[in-house]
Parts: sequence; C-alpha cells; structure tokens
Amino acid sequence: MTSREPGLFLSFEGVDGSGKSTQAALLAEYLRATGREVVLTREPGGSPGAEEIRKLVLEGSADRWSAEAELLLFTAARRDHVERLITPALARGAVVITDRFADSTRMYQGLAASGLRETVDRLHEMMIGIEPDRTFLIDMAPDRGLERALGRSGGEVRFESRGLELQERMRHGFLDLAAKTPGRIVVIDGDRPADAVASDIRSQLP
Amino acid sequence: MTSREPGLFLSFEGVDGSGKSTQAALLAEYLRATGREVVLTREPGGSPGAEEIRKLVLEGSADRWSAEAELLLFTAARRDHVERLITPALARGAVVITDRFADSTRMYQGLAASGLRETVDRLHEMMIGIEPDRTFLIDMAPDRGLERALGRSGGEVRFESRGLELQERMRHGFLDLAAKTPGRIVVIDGDRPADAVASDIRSQLP
Repeated sequence: MTSREPGLFLSFEGVDGSGKSTQAALLAEYLRATGREVVLTREPGGSPGAEEIRKLVLEGSADRWSAEAELLLFTAARRDHVERLITPALARGAVVITDRFADSTRMYQGLAASGLRETVDRLHEMMIGIEPDRTFLIDMAPDRGLERALGRSGGEVRFESRGLELQERMRHGFLDLAAKTPGRIVVIDGDRPADAVASDIRSQLP
Repeated sequence: MTSREPGLFLSFEGVDGSGKSTQAALLAEYLRATGREVVLTREPGGSPGAEEIRKLVLEGSADRWSAEAELLLFTAARRDHVERLITPALARGAVVITDRFADSTRMYQGLAASGLRETVDRLHEMMIGIEPDRTFLIDMAPDRGLERALGRSGGEVRFESRGLELQERMRHGFLDLAAKTPGRIVVIDGDRPADAVASDIRSQLP
C-alpha cells in the first residue's frame, strides 16, 4: 500500500506571482486523491527551526544581512527542513512537494553578489546534498508575475519590492538553469488558466 | 596617533571556566590605558544580527539543531560579526579582542559529529577567511575549569552541562590545534592567579 511506494520529491520554482504556490497545492490535492501521503511544504521555512530562521531573515530592513550571511541562514534553514521534515517523509514513502527549494537560493542569493553563485553550489553540495526528483519551473513574463504578486496582501514583500528588473533577471536565471538541468527541471508556461497549467504539470510527473 | 596604527585582531579560546573572559577584559583595560582604541567582543554574537542568531542557537533544548545546522548558524553569526564589527574596527586601526572565534567552532562543532571537522574548515575558508593575528589559548585542567564554570550563575549552561568528558576532549582538541598552529595560537597556563596570567599574556602580544 501507500507505505511501500518509494518517496517522491517535487519542487516548484518561479518568480513571485507565477502561481507556483497555487499549483503546488493543486498537485498535492490531486496526488492525495490517488491515495498517496503528500507533505506540502515551503521554503524558506517548512520546519519549526527553519520557520524561526525565516522570520530572522525576512523581518527587518532589506540590508539587515549581507548576501553571504543571508545565504548561510537560508542554508541552515534548509538543512533543518531536510533533516526534520523532507528526509523522514521520503523515507516513509510520502510525496514531498515544496514551494521553493535550492534553485531559489541559486537565483536570489546566487545572483545577488558577484562571485556568490559558485559559493551557493559548493554550500549546497557540502551541507544539503539532495535535489528534487522533478522541479516544475512555472514560467511567466515578469510584468505579469509582478502584477499578480503586488495584488496579493501580506507583509513579506521584500523580494517582490525589488521590482521588475530583478524579476526579469530571475526569470532568465531560472530559464538558464532549466536549460542546464533538463533531466530535473521542467519549464511550465504559467500564463494560462490554472487548470490548464495543473493538467500540464500532472502529465509531466516522473 | 591612534588612528594611524595598524589594526590588531586578538582572540581568547579555552574550555569553559578557564578564565578567558576575565583575561580578555584585563587585556582590553591594559591596552586602552596605552591609548589604543579597543573593541572587546565575544562569540557567538558580537553584532546585533549575530546576537539574535546566538539566541536562536543557545535557547531551547540541546537537540533542537543538528550539529550541521548549528555550524551553519554559527557561521552566519560570525560572518555578520566580522562584516559589521570586526573588519570596520580593524580598518580604523583598533585592537579587536574577541572572547572565542573560529577555533571554538573547530572544537565544539567540528568534534560534535564525525567528519564535520573538515567541513568546519572548508566553511571558514569559503565564508569567513580571516584569522586573528594572535590567539591566546587559556589552558586549564578540565576539572578545575568545570568547577569554576558550574560555580557561575547564568542560564546558558548548555555546553558546560555536557560535563567533564566533553571538556577533556575539548582541552586536548585545543592543545592539538595550538601545536599545529604555533605562529598564531599561544598556550597560556590559566591555573594561576589572574594577574600572573595577565602579565604572561601581555608579554606575548604580537
């Protein structure tokens, strides 16, 4: 039964407002309906310790931490998330769906300061190690994504508030990363009705 | 005058109860009397961001974080401490005296889990880089140090409470490290009256 299936690790990535959180939730619902145990989580955060680190990073002014300190904090949070939630869930055969994982760090911290991209990869290799079995990159033109992100309520708008130019860089960074990682990252056109996007994602499950 | 002297970076290390905090304060007082600007600080912590990370690590139960997550958090705190306090102070010609620095991480986190010691060094090289010009290792028999540590008040007794066996391992770890780093780490016999120890330290300033 359920507990005998192998675990499956899926992540959603994309610029803010691309609809990835909605799609992660829709996929979780779909897979639960098939009888699988699904753990739906998100980063930064996802475990009690990681959520505390998330607060430390996202609250306060944008220049409170350097890009390097932020990278270390996010890596600490991810280590905790992986150890306490993701690895145990995969070990018991669950599907883990995370809204953002290491690819977000590769983009947001890796592109924040010159020379940091390589450090992000080395840190990941040293301290995290695992990658999702499949990553759905929900692609969307940045002006469309930003429109959607700014239309949402909520206090955590640090990344969103950096504006269109950053989103443009991130989109191209994500697309480059997908081109270099074709076996894992699948690019999904997010600028369609949610049910069309969801159906596309389901057809590309591993 | 003061501002034209080159900065000097000094650290104190040793097991709990060795008297290193007292000696750091005595040395700061001595150097201030010579007209130098002295920044007396400590780790984990030492800058506002690093102090918040310190709280996150030291409060709560001892198994709240894995050794690896703890290592990442302490490295994030050190990065902030170096960027915000230590580097600017050295740049203006101050003497920075820190009660614990990277050698404590090499011992307490590096020896906590097998294989982690090398990771500690790699992380330091990647994310921190600097070492003190001189490190005073205040050496003391662990039973003497523990007696003194347990006699003190204060809530942060996590490391102390791990007991004599840990302190014994740490003492030998510190002495090994000093033997491998003779140009930087000076071993000071801490089991003497404070003024004799202080005088020894002053005679070994770089």
